[in-house]
Amino acid sequence: MSDTRQAELDDLLAAEPVPTRRPTVPALEEALYKVHPVLDHGFVRLIDYMGDDAAIVQAARVSYGKGTKTARNDRGLLRYLLRHRHTTPFEMCEIKLHVKLPIFVARQWIRHRTANVNEYSARYSILDKEFYVPAPEHLAAQSQNNRQGRDQVLAGAEANHVLELLRRDAVQTYETYDYLLNDDGKGEPADADRSMLARELARMNLPVNYYTQWYWKIDLHNLLHFLSLRMDDHAQYEIRVYGEVIGELVQKWVPTVWEAFMDFRVGGAFFSAKELEIIKKALDKDIVDQLLPESDLSMREKRAFRKTLDVPKT
Amino acid sequence: MSDTRQAELDDLLAAEPVPTRRPTVPALEEALYKVHPVLDHGFVRLIDYMGDDAAIVQAARVSYGKGTKTARNDRGLLRYLLRHRHTTPFEMCEIKLHVKLPIFVARQWIRHRTANVNEYSARYSILDKEFYVPAPEHLAAQSQNNRQGRDQVLAGAEANHVLELLRRDAVQTYETYDYLLNDDGKGEPADADRSMLARELARMNLPVNYYTQWYWKIDLHNLLHFLSLRMDDHAQYEIRVYGEVIGELVQKWVPTVWEAFMDFRVGGAFFSAKELEIIKKALDKDIVDQLLPESDLSMREKRAFRKTLDVPKT
Amino acid sequence: MSDTRQAELDDLLAAEPVPTRRPTVPALEEALYKVHPVLDHGFVRLIDYMGDDAAIVQAARVSYGKGTKTARNDRGLLRYLLRHRHTTPFEMCEIKLHVKLPIFVARQWIRHRTANVNEYSARYSILDKEFYVPAPEHLAAQSQNNRQGRDQVLAGAEANHVLELLRRDAVQTYETYDYLLNDDGKGEPADADRSMLARELARMNLPVNYYTQWYWKIDLHNLLHFLSLRMDDHAQYEIRVYGEVIGELVQKWVPTVWEAFMDFRVGGAFFSAKELEIIKKALDKDIVDQLLPESDLSMREKRAFRKTLDVPKT
Amino acid sequence: MSDTRQAELDDLLAAEPVPTRRPTVPALEEALYKVHPVLDHGFVRLIDYMGDDAAIVQAARVSYGKGTKTARNDRGLLRYLLRHRHTTPFEMCEIKLHVKLPIFVARQWIRHRTANVNEYSARYSILDKEFYVPAPEHLAAQSQNNRQGRDQVLAGAEANHVLELLRRDAVQTYETYDYLLNDDGKGEPADADRSMLARELARMNLPVNYYTQWYWKIDLHNLLHFLSLRMDDHAQYEIRVYGEVIGELVQKWVPTVWEAFMDFRVGGAFFSAKELEIIKKALDKDIVDQLLPESDLSMREKRAFRKTLDVPKT
Repeated sequence: MSDTRQAELDDLLAAEPVPTRRPTVPALEEALYKVHPVLDHGFVRLIDYMGDDAAIVQAARVSYGKGTKTARNDRGLLRYLLRHRHTTPFEMCEIKLHVKLPIFVARQWIRHRTANVNEYSARYSILDKEFYVPAPEHLAAQSQNNRQGRDQVLAGAEANHVLELLRRDAVQTYETYDYLLNDDGKGEPADADRSMLARELARMNLPVNYYTQWYWKIDLHNLLHFLSLRMDDHAQYEIRVYGEVIGELVQKWVPTVWEAFMDFRVGGAFFSAKELEIIKKALDKDIVDQLLPESDLSMREKRAFRKTLDVPKT
Repeated sequence: MSDTRQAELDDLLAAEPVPTRRPTVPALEEALYKVHPVLDHGFVRLIDYMGDDAAIVQAARVSYGKGTKTARNDRGLLRYLLRHRHTTPFEMCEIKLHVKLPIFVARQWIRHRTANVNEYSARYSILDKEFYVPAPEHLAAQSQNNRQGRDQVLAGAEANHVLELLRRDAVQTYETYDYLLNDDGKGEPADADRSMLARELARMNLPVNYYTQWYWKIDLHNLLHFLSLRMDDHAQYEIRVYGEVIGELVQKWVPTVWEAFMDFRVGGAFFSAKELEIIKKALDKDIVDQLLPESDLSMREKRAFRKTLDVPKT
Repeated sequence: MSDTRQAELDDLLAAEPVPTRRPTVPALEEALYKVHPVLDHGFVRLIDYMGDDAAIVQAARVSYGKGTKTARNDRGLLRYLLRHRHTTPFEMCEIKLHVKLPIFVARQWIRHRTANVNEYSARYSILDKEFYVPAPEHLAAQSQNNRQGRDQVLAGAEANHVLELLRRDAVQTYETYDYLLNDDGKGEPADADRSMLARELARMNLPVNYYTQWYWKIDLHNLLHFLSLRMDDHAQYEIRVYGEVIGELVQKWVPTVWEAFMDFRVGGAFFSAKELEIIKKALDKDIVDQLLPESDLSMREKRAFRKTLDVPKT
Repeated sequence: MSDTRQAELDDLLAAEPVPTRRPTVPALEEALYKVHPVLDHGFVRLIDYMGDDAAIVQAARVSYGKGTKTARNDRGLLRYLLRHRHTTPFEMCEIKLHVKLPIFVARQWIRHRTANVNEYSARYSILDKEFYVPAPEHLAAQSQNNRQGRDQVLAGAEANHVLELLRRDAVQTYETYDYLLNDDGKGEPADADRSMLARELARMNLPVNYYTQWYWKIDLHNLLHFLSLRMDDHAQYEIRVYGEVIGELVQKWVPTVWEAFMDFRVGGAFFSAKELEIIKKALDKDIVDQLLPESDLSMREKRAFRKTLDVPKT
């Protein structure tokens, strides 16, 4: 991040708060504009947010209108909506982040299409000499079972050699980039006897572990979908760490939604028709009868659980 | 549908097939342009399609490239993709339908945003005198448990009276509409002493059980999502019947995907973290050990099943 | 709007402002939660907003990074971005509205797919007895030139008769609706001897001039697209008035963007290749030479203007 | 592209055509599955298509229904729709391409979000040793006026040196990649004494001029938007050449739409409110009166032209 942009955000951070009537989350106000470091040079920075737990409830109640006779409490409603994938009320919250990330991570990330993005342009501007090299504990071998996976971590001299090679190539390709740009930092030739190669061409020499940055804005429904995929064990470590930092922000922002998300999305499991048959046959109904009443499932959840698994109330 | 449009589609139906090198599904060719009646005046009509089971496999194999050493068979790959929600290959198939449906059904349907739509315009054209009245067996009372649900069916004189009222109001509002339009069918005043009210205004008098129609085009991934919601028991009957007719077309179109969809989406169930705990405790592991080997789950599925439910291989 | 929902929003309106570090627009804070009436029973109500003119500049400068040597001023940058359809920075602002509108207006509105919506559900809840009837000055005849257009206004006895018919049918269909629901306002039968028809069925009897309501959230880029279509003369009057009220809010929210939008989108015109040829031939270059310097086009705009119209600088 | 995948597409190319009743475009059938080379190692390959000029007309006529009394001819309707940005009928056509392209081009391309993509996965598979190096005639210096632009072409020894550096770094980074993978081509270690670094890590060493490939599916409306931006002079040369090859396919596919696109989008120009004022003042109305009748603008276009430019019919 250039010094002027950094200074600009520092100004925002230092500025006196102003009054607003909009929904405001004190815990998130604390996090505004602060850098949350990720990987060796990356970060996540909260730029703005819209809505909170209550704003989701408010939007959902528009749909139910006069029909909502009984005052189902807000927490119960949020859990019900999340569980049953009534997704539109969650779209009523929005978050905007400034993210610095390696290009190969950006390439996975951008596949989430329902988001708004402004990325640093290497056609227009010059990329900083900042590249990602894994910490030794993340330098893993190729998994033999799973082509997308990692196996045991490399160690000792072997690991050092790998890191050395990655650094060497990153440094050399940037030197070439810098040479081709031939820019003295003020837009004039550093070496007046040579041309300045077009920026949009020179950048092609940089590897995908170089850092880019962007503003990224997304609604809460699509963000939860992003997190459910990117915080998952199957996600590449280098994007998962971004997911985890964003997850902490979401937890501060909409704590009730986060709890429901953990229960119903992250911690849950889906079984196919065939698997369900096996579970039904292997289930000890007496134990269910004993455990269900003492669980804190809602009445509605208990009924659905019995129905799905063919365990009639005795 | 106007007579000219009907004639146009009849022409397509009667035309000699032409040769193509594109993926072609004989069972779906049979269904092209034919009317599949739904409700009292509605229909679903297949206009075009792109891709088949094999086209999804082909697209997925681009992603996996050289990595796909072992020739996992196509059916296995399709099932794996669908189960693990690798959704992008399913977006590689597309279908286009001509649908005639009551306005209140169209209002639910249109909420699926990732689709292309060309609807009949009542600003521009005159709506036909066609409205939906439920068949007596679908004239249900309001559910007392579920505000979105239906209870027992009305019968006898009570049902007749309801249907009579619906018909009376539909007929009267159309008579008013027709009077306000004052159109002789050729765009001239039927009664030269009166104005012809603007079509965009006159149409406001028609109830939402009047039929509209549209061309609707959607990719297979988003269509399956539509079907999983609209073929569900919780969907209103009047949209569910459209879902079922479209489901039959999808089954002809991509039979392997359809089978996987039934196993992994429609017939399956999701359990929350808390419910999973109960299942784990109530599960008789010996029975699992006995049933799993004789099931036709894949090796990978068996491993995942044991892991999710803490049933180590004995 | 039900009394409880009204009370809820009144509470928000009465609540003390709280401090925030987010971008805040005082003129828009004033407008928060207040009802802006539209048509006879409709309204637009600002619920929340994210960003301001400066937030767009900030996002755009991420893209241009160090490359932005010269401090192009913010207004100039915003105008440049809007003119050249660099749309992504405008997606960085978001607005959330509560809108009450006739169903036939909602049906046009919903065609804008890149937005988030929570609509009042007539499957779940009971619609109020509120329907739209045009004011006499908007009761226009069908245009003979333009099938989507309106012609001269109906007057006198003829207009009165039309309004009377619209009211009569709206009242009668609601009476039928109310009779079919048979709801005493507390979810119990008003007449214990009759069934209560399912809400999802009873609502089919209501005409499309009945009011519905929704929460609608959209980013600024897509909102400007909505406004450019819906504030246009070709839009139906009944949706145009909503566009105008929203336009006033946008003007308060992002005044610099609004000015550019008026100059470059609303007030401008597109000419085809063939039309451009005619303009080039008919253009008096001396007058251009005389007018251009005294205009307040930017240097860049003047250059582009001369190039497009083949008027070299003399 | 791997040999097996190549063989697979060759099979499709060699297969006998089968009969279909779907809209079929003979000129496009000829192009199916054939490689259209782009840049030094890239290509565009047509995989499938849905619809044609007539299919757009057919969908548009659903909207206009009985209202279309006079038989406006199809070409006139297509031109009208395109000119007035009635975009939904163009969404009724769909095309699927297989594209091989440098990563830095893919990064610009993917910003078009309304499309379906399956990309080669370097997490899962091994990238080929294929990288882009500009032909000497495209090795341009940085523009001094336009930060996104190119200036004069480098020549002689200077150009040779640049190309040599680009090749050197591309070769060396691939050697490192290959070394880190340590894969013998069968998924076993080439050197049994070393680990095989995880593929998802090793790929981070490759520069963005390495080639990737994907299946890309998009509707015609969004494709035309893509082409209007990417065939433009302001687009980077390396993506523009893809735009041009795709443009040739579109011209074969929907020739009438293509002609209208050239007239109304590519060849036309937009003027702001202020620019319009200058044009109005500088326009010689007599010349307009003389040129307009002999032009082949439609009646409607002539009327609109006069109105926009204040040239009343004399």
